[in-house]
Amino acid sequence: MRLRYQALILLAAGLMASSPPVLDQRSPAEILAASGAAEWRSPAPDDTLYMDLAGGRVVIELAPDFAPRHVARIKALARQGFYDGLDFYRVVDGFVAQAGAGEEGRDTGELEPTVAAEFERALDPALPFTPLGAPDGYAAEVGYVAGFPAARDAAAGRMWLVHCPQAVAMARDNEPDSGGTEIYVVIGHAPRYLDRNLTIFGRVVAGQELLQRLPRGEAGLSGMIAAGAPRGTILRLRVAADLPANERTALEILRTDSPSFVALIAARRNRPEEFFVYRPDHIDVCGVPIPVRPAPTSP
Amino acid sequence: MRLRYQALILLAAGLMASSPPVLDQRSPAEILAASGAAEWRSPAPDDTLYMDLAGGRVVIELAPDFAPRHVARIKALARQGFYDGLDFYRVVDGFVAQAGAGEEGRDTGELEPTVAAEFERALDPALPFTPLGAPDGYAAEVGYVAGFPAARDAAAGRMWLVHCPQAVAMARDNEPDSGGTEIYVVIGHAPRYLDRNLTIFGRVVAGQELLQRLPRGEAGLSGMIAAGAPRGTILRLRVAADLPANERTALEILRTDSPSFVALIAARRNRPEEFFVYRPDHIDVCGVPIPVRPAPTSP
Repeated sequence: MRLRYQALILLAAGLMASSPPVLDQRSPAEILAASGAAEWRSPAPDDTLYMDLAGGRVVIELAPDFAPRHVARIKALARQGFYDGLDFYRVVDGFVAQAGAGEEGRDTGELEPTVAAEFERALDPALPFTPLGAPDGYAAEVGYVAGFPAARDAAAGRMWLVHCPQAVAMARDNEPDSGGTEIYVVIGHAPRYLDRNLTIFGRVVAGQELLQRLPRGEAGLSGMIAAGAPRGTILRLRVAADLPANERTALEILRTDSPSFVALIAARRNRPEEFFVYRPDHIDVCGVPIPVRPAPTSP
Repeated sequence: MRLRYQALILLAAGLMASSPPVLDQRSPAEILAASGAAEWRSPAPDDTLYMDLAGGRVVIELAPDFAPRHVARIKALARQGFYDGLDFYRVVDGFVAQAGAGEEGRDTGELEPTVAAEFERALDPALPFTPLGAPDGYAAEVGYVAGFPAARDAAAGRMWLVHCPQAVAMARDNEPDSGGTEIYVVIGHAPRYLDRNLTIFGRVVAGQELLQRLPRGEAGLSGMIAAGAPRGTILRLRVAADLPANERTALEILRTDSPSFVALIAARRNRPEEFFVYRPDHIDVCGVPIPVRPAPTSP
């Protein structure tokens, strides 16, 4: 038996050192079913926004590690009720849905009118980067940090969040530090060319379909919806921590530095399912859904 | 003057042979404004479908050069009124909207129950390939053929259509030749891993926002919408040629083998607009919108 185990260990070591790596033949459903409770996390209520629309609630996880100034600002604006009653007045099909004070010049109170850009940040061992392990045309390397699709340039010591669908970011004028209150959510194919040109400060983790269903504006990149035409309205934007526990949406998100998420990346790349005739041996950073599930109800 | 012209010609030749190429600093709007009438085409009415939904008309251009069997079949089904009254009963947010006979087993009449796969085809000089000129993780080379985002493998002599948003394709079971009547439209980030695994036979050229606004099904890849829950319904699916001229939607599409489209690719890659702080020097094949405009009205 000892010899047999030893042979297996050597075989495993040999396979692990060789290329290509051993393929995980499990499907995404099988990987999730086998995931451990500790691989899931609940977003911090103080870094979670609830955007209530007529159709239901959009849950946005904020990214204070990447955009602390923008996160502080959006929370302050939410706590002023700044966004309550504002419309998504610019919705470009296949691109972004945008809301803010642009149209009516709503007052930001004691807040500065603008916020300095946070396009990228320094690498930090406290924020582990899970590499996608597949090439990317827009960045030296792509992967995931703290639940967000991200990119890094190890040589320059920098990392940043990337524009996948569900990214929530601050619009601006030509001046990089000109963002104020105009927020947008990516609702189409990932506009990755915007990476490092705008500050992503959050990500929709539930309710994206409500944003996808918003009335659109006119064709082209203007996307403005004429006054009087149907628009989606933000009924309320609140910080989750400010709501009583029984009014919160209890979610769990698979940790992007967990073994199960690493296995999911491999499953999306290799497509072990019988359905696939051609296996691409590739996946792009926006092509791996980050699993979200209702939190188990307390007993 | 002669010398001066000659110098210019030599200079131009030298620049054309060198790398990187001369950058076109025009914006997409400027490029389109300068485009010539001959660079635009009108889709053939006999290869165009009108899908009427409650919110308006979706226009689909068919791809007989890539999927002749599927195109013949969908036209025959449309002419039977097969899709009239069928629901988009499976709508997966960020992925696909699907309709077909799956649910109620509607009869296909004299048509065979299934159609043989058309995942790829041979290269053909009559179908010029406009290269994107940027690397791609899923294919040896990507670009555009006859108005469709596509890929090719020159060594193997093959090309195929790729899954960008707006792609219209035939669903199937695990068996490649099992497609029948279940059609789907890509409504999310490009699921390129489906390339060469399913038959793309058309592309939405107008009305994509109507499909984006369809009611969604349950979370996850099932996306099924329970009977009784709100669903989008196909009121009518018709071949444009079967409608009188005054009921047709007159569109023009920029030719993907035109100089203006090649310039648009460069503009999307280089982002000459002042707005951009970081210029990615990259674009992906689904990141170049193929311009569509109303056809000039006849005098």
